Order: sequence, then C-alpha cells, then structure tokens
Amino acid sequence: MVIKVRLRNIKNKVEILENSKYLISNPEKYKGSWKEVFNNNNPIYIEIGMGKGKFILGNALKYQNINFIGIEKYDSVIARSIKKIEEYDIPNLKLIRIDAKELEKVFDKDIDLIYLTFSDPWPKDRHEKRRLTHENFLNIYKNLFKSTNKIILKTDNKGLFEYSLKSLSEYGFIIKSVNVDLHNSKECDIITTEYEDKFVKLGKPIYKLECEK
Amino acid sequence: MVIKVRLRNIKNKVEILENSKYLISNPEKYKGSWKEVFNNNNPIYIEIGMGKGKFILGNALKYQNINFIGIEKYDSVIARSIKKIEEYDIPNLKLIRIDAKELEKVFDKDIDLIYLTFSDPWPKDRHEKRRLTHENFLNIYKNLFKSTNKIILKTDNKGLFEYSLKSLSEYGFIIKSVNVDLHNSKECDIITTEYEDKFVKLGKPIYKLECEK
Repeated sequence: MVIKVRLRNIKNKVEILENSKYLISNPEKYKGSWKEVFNNNNPIYIEIGMGKGKFILGNALKYQNINFIGIEKYDSVIARSIKKIEEYDIPNLKLIRIDAKELEKVFDKDIDLIYLTFSDPWPKDRHEKRRLTHENFLNIYKNLFKSTNKIILKTDNKGLFEYSLKSLSEYGFIIKSVNVDLHNSKECDIITTEYEDKFVKLGKPIYKLECEK
Repeated sequence: MVIKVRLRNIKNKVEILENSKYLISNPEKYKGSWKEVFNNNNPIYIEIGMGKGKFILGNALKYQNINFIGIEKYDSVIARSIKKIEEYDIPNLKLIRIDAKELEKVFDKDIDLIYLTFSDPWPKDRHEKRRLTHENFLNIYKNLFKSTNKIILKTDNKGLFEYSLKSLSEYGFIIKSVNVDLHNSKECDIITTEYEDKFVKLGKPIYKLECEK
C-alpha cells in the first residue's frame, strides 16, 4: 500500500514562498556558514523530504537548542508546510526548497544530523539509485557533515528499511539503534510525520534506525 | 510469548549419545583439524543451539558440498535430534554437545559460517551478556573462523534482532542482508527450524540477518 503526498496545487503558491520568513530563497549564499543564519553555534539538523512539515515543526518547538532546516523539493508541498509553520514564531527553524541531489551546493561541513523520514522507497531494482540511502547520496551527505556523520531514518517500508541497513553498513556506518516496531516499543514521546500517523492508524509497523560514521 | 524447548527426559539418553555415529564425543581432539573429520576441504558451517536438529539436518541433506556441525548443550535435546538424524546416512553432518562459551576448546580457525537460530533472547538488561550476539561471544567466535567471519541469525524475537544488529555492527560486522518478515518475502526455499514452524503458523514475523567481517 502506498499513501502518496498529494501534490495539490495551492493558490498564491509563489506569493506564499516569496513572503515566508522561514524559507531561505538564496541558500547557496550560506554554504559553510549556516551558523550565521541562526546566529548561534547550536547543532544543525536537517530533514530531507520534510513534506508538510509536522515532524520538523514538532522537533523545532521541542528542542530549542537545536537548529532545524527542512528540505523539500516541491513548491506546492513546501507552500503547505509554510502555511502551517507561519502560525508560529520559531527562531530555530528554516526551510530550503531544493532537490537532495543538489545539497552540496548549499552545505559544506555545516550540519550535525540528517533525518530521512518516510522517503520514497523506489521499490523497483532499476530505481535503486533514487533511494535516499543509495551510495551516491551517501557520497553527497558526507560533505555536509561537520564531523561525525549521523543519520536517523524512519519508514513504514520494509524494503527500504532492509536496503538502508545494508547500504549504510556497507558504506561504513555503525548501526547505533534499530526499532522494527516503533509504536509498539519502549520508545516514548515520538514526534510523528503526517505519513506516520496514517500508517500507525492502519496498524502498520514503523521501522527506525540510527547510525553514525 | 515464549515457546520453550521442552527439556523432556529421554529414556536411554546416555546410550543414544554413546552409540551415535553423528556425535563427536571427544571434540577437543580435532581442534584446528576438523577437515580431517570430514576427510575433505569443504567449508564448515556450525549451528549454535541446534535444538532438535531440523534446520541443520535440512541443510546437510540439501548442501552436500558443505560440512555441518550442530552444537547443543543439553543431553536430552541432542538425544532427540540424534533419534531423528540416525534415520539418515549423512557424511557431511556431525554433532557436538558443548556450551557455546566453550567453543574455543574445540575449534581454531576451522569454520566458515555460524548460524544462530532462534537463540534465547534473554530480554532482561541484566542478562545481556548471555545473548549469543553479545560482544563476549563475538570475541569467542572470532577465533573459530578460518578467515572471513560470517554469521547468519534468524529469530522471532524483535528485541534480540534489534540488539544483534547494533551489537554486530558496533563490533565491526558489515550487514550484508536483512529481512524483517522472512516468510512474507521473495526469499524462497527456506529451511526452517522446529520453533520457526510454530511461529510462522502463529503469523509472527521471522527476522533474519546476514553479516560478515
């Protein structure tokens, strides 16, 4: 079963994006100096594929001593997240509209942790290179991290989870934590994504891994 | 839910063990020279905790160019497996009655692969050291392998599976393959254990991992 984000068109999309205090319209400008954007030395965590933003918003509100940057490639999706986030005044949250393949253009040893949340599983073998845990993406990520490479992945997709464990391990990441049924485990106080809420309601297990290198 | 092996006492246990052509009664004698037991240079795979022997028997019958050694610490359990195995004449199968902690006494760079099948999960934190994927056991295993360390683990126990991924990865093993629902996957022609059959009937997912170092 696949629940797709609806790429519904939003009225005034361009206007919403242009006027948002959260969206950084010229992110290349801050490559290597993102701490200046936040005006502090706190760690920087990014979520690649933030969708409608529930997860990163929840994290930014809860962990005010961490800076969060949401990454999303679709105008319509990011415009919807902005409508939600603009209700709040959150100094430790920014958004960037960019494809994950282009991340090296905007970051250089800037970040401390990457969240991959409910990424497209690309189940067909011939699409393996599109999975966000493929070696090609890991080669991009390694240039984004300040020092230790840390990745946290959550997914409902068995195939993507199994693939990611293998791919990350073969790349040299050490698996620090695994959960094969997050919402029926001791882990409490879980900040969810919109997808995750739907899957949990359907009784599907949510898989999570944390790794570092 | 836990399904325990019944340590039912078997009549003539001692006699069964003494008269078996499969059980090696003095395994220390072959330390470092197990290929002489089989009289060939084929790879040697061991199963630690073979229980009643269905899995290793199935493997030995199917893969005749691999030598299999079943390890079990309980007299009663190994006697039951012998009763089953004695029906066959299998040159590539031997059994040893020994505790996993003592394996260094009988092997020295002899083996190619270790199967850990439905090992006791020891779920309590204070029993962590008893889990067969604890660092202390990995320290023992490393002296048993000829060259590449290869471990295949199957379990129905979520906690043991999650723990083992972390423990093996932190020890330096590379995760080569993961399956979080073996019996609902593309993997076919699966040789099962007695436990596994019970769990599959109950609709529980079976977890599997393959790793090497």
